Amino acid sequence: MNSITQPTLTNDLLNLIPIKGIKLGTTCANIKQVDRKDLVMIELSAATTTAAVFTKNQFCAAPVQISKQHLTKSRPRYLLINTGNANAGTGEQGLTDSVNVCEAVASSADCKEYEVLPFSTGVIGENLAMDKILAGIPTAYKNLSDTQQNWIDAAHGIMTTDTIAKGRSIQLTLEGKTITITGIAKGSGMIRPDMATMLAYIATDAKIETQLLQECLQTAVAGSFNRITVDGDTSTNDSCLLLASGASTIEITSNNRTEFQSKLTQLCENLAKDMIRDGEGATKLITINIHNGSSEQECLNLAYLIAHSPLVKTAFFASDPNWGRLLAVVGRANIKDLALSKIKIFLDEMCIVSNGGRDSSYTEAIAQKIMDQTEITIRVDLGRSKDGKNKATVWTCDLSTEYVRINAEYRT
Amino acid sequence: MNSITQPTLTNDLLNLIPIKGIKLGTTCANIKQVDRKDLVMIELSAATTTAAVFTKNQFCAAPVQISKQHLTKSRPRYLLINTGNANAGTGEQGLTDSVNVCEAVASSADCKEYEVLPFSTGVIGENLAMDKILAGIPTAYKNLSDTQQNWIDAAHGIMTTDTIAKGRSIQLTLEGKTITITGIAKGSGMIRPDMATMLAYIATDAKIETQLLQECLQTAVAGSFNRITVDGDTSTNDSCLLLASGASTIEITSNNRTEFQSKLTQLCENLAKDMIRDGEGATKLITINIHNGSSEQECLNLAYLIAHSPLVKTAFFASDPNWGRLLAVVGRANIKDLALSKIKIFLDEMCIVSNGGRDSSYTEAIAQKIMDQTEITIRVDLGRSKDGKNKATVWTCDLSTEYVRINAEYRT
Repeated sequence: MNSITQPTLTNDLLNLIPIKGIKLGTTCANIKQVDRKDLVMIELSAATTTAAVFTKNQFCAAPVQISKQHLTKSRPRYLLINTGNANAGTGEQGLTDSVNVCEAVASSADCKEYEVLPFSTGVIGENLAMDKILAGIPTAYKNLSDTQQNWIDAAHGIMTTDTIAKGRSIQLTLEGKTITITGIAKGSGMIRPDMATMLAYIATDAKIETQLLQECLQTAVAGSFNRITVDGDTSTNDSCLLLASGASTIEITSNNRTEFQSKLTQLCENLAKDMIRDGEGATKLITINIHNGSSEQECLNLAYLIAHSPLVKTAFFASDPNWGRLLAVVGRANIKDLALSKIKIFLDEMCIVSNGGRDSSYTEAIAQKIMDQTEITIRVDLGRSKDGKNKATVWTCDLSTEYVRINAEYRT
Repeated sequence: MNSITQPTLTNDLLNLIPIKGIKLGTTCANIKQVDRKDLVMIELSAATTTAAVFTKNQFCAAPVQISKQHLTKSRPRYLLINTGNANAGTGEQGLTDSVNVCEAVASSADCKEYEVLPFSTGVIGENLAMDKILAGIPTAYKNLSDTQQNWIDAAHGIMTTDTIAKGRSIQLTLEGKTITITGIAKGSGMIRPDMATMLAYIATDAKIETQLLQECLQTAVAGSFNRITVDGDTSTNDSCLLLASGASTIEITSNNRTEFQSKLTQLCENLAKDMIRDGEGATKLITINIHNGSSEQECLNLAYLIAHSPLVKTAFFASDPNWGRLLAVVGRANIKDLALSKIKIFLDEMCIVSNGGRDSSYTEAIAQKIMDQTEITIRVDLGRSKDGKNKATVWTCDLSTEYVRINAEYRT
């Protein structure tokens, strides 16, 4: 069995590239723990357009409800994010608290309260420690700046059970000029995003009209944040924002969006995989590819079923090539008219199952070598279409004793 | 956090009542471990009728396939159950092995091989240790007897990761005579039965024609074995058999079946709950009642969603009244037109959620007292129908570090 050491993360906060027009300010408000950054303010230049996607959880948190309302009224100028408390399941008091947070920011920054979007993450069902948050806002405001260090501080400031801060930058060249996209994100439990994940803030200096920006974000999220799962539990607070300051003066339109979209999606995919690598208790990143199903939805359902199987996840934690558990999941997926003999299951490039049983080329030694890796791909070929067009990819992690410990002790 | 001690089980093997016409023989065949009972033979009198339900997992094991075939040919006279190996995912070799097991029993017992039903449980994807099983069959046959001790030995002989052998008896009086129903069962991981659970053998001395016996079994299973889940993983080998020897000479017909059905269902429910109490790593039995949904299926879907939430299960392991996690599951259940304000969630008799947040009567002290119990009921009132007719109950257990340890080390 693996010990609980995190795999080395490939993201590098030191490569984060600031975005002109976007400033960040972070402080320690001592909301749940003392002496850790837990309150982040983001200032958007007046020219900045904003796109947002939020959780589909029907019990969505008060800040999600208020953010949605404010987005209908105005372009946002400030975001305020607190950790340590999700302000979810808090009824009327929660809504009042979120509005009061916006008013306090508006008072510091001299703007309207509906130009502020509030975000919260942490334990569900407790009221916000308003005194601490209100006391922290002026300091966060004073700290606003567009340096790399401010991005790094913000990446740390939005963490909850994450062990590593997550941030990435990517660039593209358009009309001879450079466009930068920079994002920060947090996981790491209650992660099966459904519209977005909790929380990601992505900024670019491209100029993009709001409606197109929203389209770009939704496209990027669909194949990235919405394809990861740690534990199948969709959060009440998932939010993902894309801010376009326009400071590069390059405009993205529906005619030239292709490369921007591609880079944005790549950034989101990388941030999403960073989240899984740092999933609660995770020791492995598992990529699940299903193809040749009779529909994309069929492939996606099976991918999630495998990703959520406690028996598959514990086998990966143990680095045990217990392929029988994979086969058992395919068997219980309730796929109509499934021809068992046509199904092939692969671990990385090795075929482990064919003709309803262990493939003849299977060797425990090679399987063990693959299972010992920190990044592994499971591929299931359902053999139900010839063109291979129907496929789906989901990223998940293993299930460790550490996951249970973290979530058993979460409120203590 | 609870230490991993099993709650006291209420079933009592010492109260098991033998069934006339049914003999059991158990031996140590050393299939996976030495010196533990792992091979069980059951002999059915010539008059015995048999009903059976099997897993719906499409990758069902070789013995399940062979048992289904043999049931179409003849009344069974012998059952042979091995633990330590599921003979699943073993292709043609697996089928051949299962048939050879039946032939060996037929040879010892002087019957036809199709009068024997084979059952296997244990690791998936490895071939049966045929030499050990064939060597054990004559001893199991020699040990056949209808004493209480033989039932107790058989209850032990079918165990895999179970920590406690499970058996129960129940009686009813009909026409002044006593009818007995006695069952043994095993869990305890890969448990989300879909038709039956792996494995349960129930016998009665009532006389019941095969078709009615099958109806009685299916009715009993629907509200018992098919309503429990440890980890959501449906096994490849689930099998549940009901044997009616007729030795009491009392015949159950469609006219007088009511009390027999009721007692049979009660026995199955009790055995099912015994399985959950002894689920892998379990420290708590959690009953999930959903009612007032817009349909029974809606209630059942939500019950399973709660039962499979790792965050809910770890909170119960920690005895932490983290009701926000329950609320988050209801919110992500994708129930159309859900009126959040009408939902009420209860822990035992205490209302914890109403009006979209913590109920005003909630106190952490009472919640903690309930969470410290080993048996807890979660009740969700969806407030979508007035007559309360639409409801569903599912039983599950908590998720402990021990569950992960057991399943990470399963093949070692």
